[in-house]
Amino acid sequence: MSELSVDHLLGIKYLNKKDIELIFETADHFKEVINRSIKKVPTLRDITIANIFFENSTRTRLSFELAEKRLSADVVNFSAGQSSVKKGETLIDTVNNILSMKVDMVVMRHPNPGAGIFLSKHVKAAIVNAGDGAHEHPTQALLDSFSIREKLGDVGGKNVVIVGDILHSRVALSNIFALKLQGANVKVCGPKTLIPKHIGSLGVTVETDLKKALQWCDVANMLRVQNERMDISYFPSTREYTQQFGVNKELLDSLDKQIVIMHPGPINRGVEITSDVADSDQSIILHQVENGVAIRMAVLYLLASKIK
Amino acid sequence: MSELSVDHLLGIKYLNKKDIELIFETADHFKEVINRSIKKVPTLRDITIANIFFENSTRTRLSFELAEKRLSADVVNFSAGQSSVKKGETLIDTVNNILSMKVDMVVMRHPNPGAGIFLSKHVKAAIVNAGDGAHEHPTQALLDSFSIREKLGDVGGKNVVIVGDILHSRVALSNIFALKLQGANVKVCGPKTLIPKHIGSLGVTVETDLKKALQWCDVANMLRVQNERMDISYFPSTREYTQQFGVNKELLDSLDKQIVIMHPGPINRGVEITSDVADSDQSIILHQVENGVAIRMAVLYLLASKIK
Amino acid sequence: MSELSVDHLLGIKYLNKKDIELIFETADHFKEVINRSIKKVPTLRDITIANIFFENSTRTRLSFELAEKRLSADVVNFSAGQSSVKKGETLIDTVNNILSMKVDMVVMRHPNPGAGIFLSKHVKAAIVNAGDGAHEHPTQALLDSFSIREKLGDVGGKNVVIVGDILHSRVALSNIFALKLQGANVKVCGPKTLIPKHIGSLGVTVETDLKKALQWCDVANMLRVQNERMDISYFPSTREYTQQFGVNKELLDSLDKQIVIMHPGPINRGVEITSDVADSDQSIILHQVENGVAIRMAVLYLLASKIK
Repeated sequence: MSELSVDHLLGIKYLNKKDIELIFETADHFKEVINRSIKKVPTLRDITIANIFFENSTRTRLSFELAEKRLSADVVNFSAGQSSVKKGETLIDTVNNILSMKVDMVVMRHPNPGAGIFLSKHVKAAIVNAGDGAHEHPTQALLDSFSIREKLGDVGGKNVVIVGDILHSRVALSNIFALKLQGANVKVCGPKTLIPKHIGSLGVTVETDLKKALQWCDVANMLRVQNERMDISYFPSTREYTQQFGVNKELLDSLDKQIVIMHPGPINRGVEITSDVADSDQSIILHQVENGVAIRMAVLYLLASKIK
Repeated sequence: MSELSVDHLLGIKYLNKKDIELIFETADHFKEVINRSIKKVPTLRDITIANIFFENSTRTRLSFELAEKRLSADVVNFSAGQSSVKKGETLIDTVNNILSMKVDMVVMRHPNPGAGIFLSKHVKAAIVNAGDGAHEHPTQALLDSFSIREKLGDVGGKNVVIVGDILHSRVALSNIFALKLQGANVKVCGPKTLIPKHIGSLGVTVETDLKKALQWCDVANMLRVQNERMDISYFPSTREYTQQFGVNKELLDSLDKQIVIMHPGPINRGVEITSDVADSDQSIILHQVENGVAIRMAVLYLLASKIK
Repeated sequence: MSELSVDHLLGIKYLNKKDIELIFETADHFKEVINRSIKKVPTLRDITIANIFFENSTRTRLSFELAEKRLSADVVNFSAGQSSVKKGETLIDTVNNILSMKVDMVVMRHPNPGAGIFLSKHVKAAIVNAGDGAHEHPTQALLDSFSIREKLGDVGGKNVVIVGDILHSRVALSNIFALKLQGANVKVCGPKTLIPKHIGSLGVTVETDLKKALQWCDVANMLRVQNERMDISYFPSTREYTQQFGVNKELLDSLDKQIVIMHPGPINRGVEITSDVADSDQSIILHQVENGVAIRMAVLYLLASKIK
């Protein structure tokens, strides 16, 4: 049987095209399992997984936890709030301590870019990056591509625009890597101050006119506005943002084709998209959430099969 | 086999007498199971339940969690503190996201009256209301009636007085609905400012003299004093409250019969009841807690059997 | 089959030598189980354990939780932050409520010395003390001795020095009881203001010169510096502490023998020990963590077999 080329899922940057295909085929299988009345497989019955979250998260943590439980893994949760991290312990000591308790895999969210990569070099366990600062969020990009593939048959050759604060978004960066690897055409669209200068080197073009971007694309991935960042000097106000980069039904209906609307959640209804767009037939937002569990089951399963 | 007339447990108001009987018979069975050395049944092995608590709770959350685990359901916990609720996400989006991960049932506590009802109209999952503001707390009322039935053989025809802040109490309202439905006679007793004006329309009479109320009743359900509300203008002080509406052993012994003392917990010892009352043979407070798990197992089981 | 002489694990003070031997033999067995690819035993399948933590803890809580899950027990977690404890409920009421839900064992951490002992007299469940203020932390002392036995073959006859704030340390007190019971020779070393005056009555001698203490010992157990306590009048500053009582590689290499370095964690690298000491071959710190799970499995198993 084929296996992943990597021992950790640290970023899409480290995957090849075959890895993504293998993850998708495995996720197809698990999605079928979840949809049957018997939701659980005994696959990882003897694997212990620690979910270590140094940043708050709801949907990502829940999605991983459900994926782990449906694989029958043993799960322990650790969040920085309750932890000895506050007492000045180093990241490696914290994680090594958890691993000494015979934990096989670590799912980690951390505010520092590269925290997962650093960790993977110092500890003996498979690491899954559940978001490292503004760097990568690989399972999000995988579930996004998986959802496009499910809706449009294939990712290769499709036109995808990512709209919003590209500069600070791990969702954007991981999506760009994943989409390019699969042969999609990618544009980014957003306020000029929020688009990285080197973006061209990733094979991505910039379109600052939202209507033109939408007219071009098959899929628009609308990033969440980080309200807490708005109103800092180089950010537009929320109102300005919505006027220039928000999608409403009128705009959508003015296009001469049906595009697919995606959003990583949680949605600010009325800011990046209006409610009628979020709830329209063109939106696959809830399918993204649903597919997240299957993708995470696939990733955990494939990494576990390498350590067994 | 009989089944519930409802698809959700939103409030006692929506149940009929047969529903309550069915829940009690099912709880009888589960109570027997818990008391055997084998505590667990595989009944809900393929059901995933999310406990969504937008308000803190200890005993109710623990009781639901134990009920779910003894039914072998998969359980995920979500509390508002860690959540994207803070980021301005709507209730429906939050819950729809969780449900997209193939969650079958939601147990929800929410500060807003009617939150469960609202939700049940917008999402596809069985909803159990674990307390919605000052509105209803149906599993508490069910376990209270179940405990009366266990102690006195039947609820019908019994005289029950509910003592305390009736106006702000979901426990009181759900108890009134449940007791009336089963044919009990109900009085409420408490400070006049804390008794709703329309209470008569629920078939309930008011008795402001505690001793008279106790003399009349078979069962006294002593509500918890919400210390955080006391000392607001229309509330008595804690000391005044205890003098007029607190039950001590002397008062209890002065009655010409043995009444049953109930309390939903947590107790303020020395405020609504003294320690010797709480720990006396007349108190069934810990039986209420014990019965809570069996009642919740019954409710979850009966609702799950409708979605399977 | 032999069994423990006690029904609770409240402190090492209440154990005899045979109890410790039985716990170690049982832990040997469980350690073997954990190290096989099948990590889980169905031993406590019908036991429900509540982890009740009135103080924050990471490693101890995780270690107990993993031990419980590997024994297939049902686990519920309760921490004071979310709880009705804030509402003024008494400890006995809180725990009795949890036990009424048919919980068989309680693992409790509490800031008050003797909280577990008090509780064991008032509730019907096996109690495991996971740390009660500055009093005892018996599972830590057991895993420490177990790790010495694993490294050096036996605890009896060995020279062990405990370095640090002896006065406020439950780890120190439980270790002293455990080591003496097994026939080890024990010295304590630390700032004079942080050594209890009655320490001699425990059969322990004081050595204020760290180098002499290390020269004498087979094992040095380096307590964690409680930074939050430092800089109070009778405490040295962190810098002073490190100069007098910190261990670095130079000091270690200046001894004419190889001693074993232990630490209960979390480590303040550069304070009580330097990084090269923590990560050296002489350090068994991560083995302590690993052994903690096996020791806790043994304790839970042996106590559960007395209630069945």
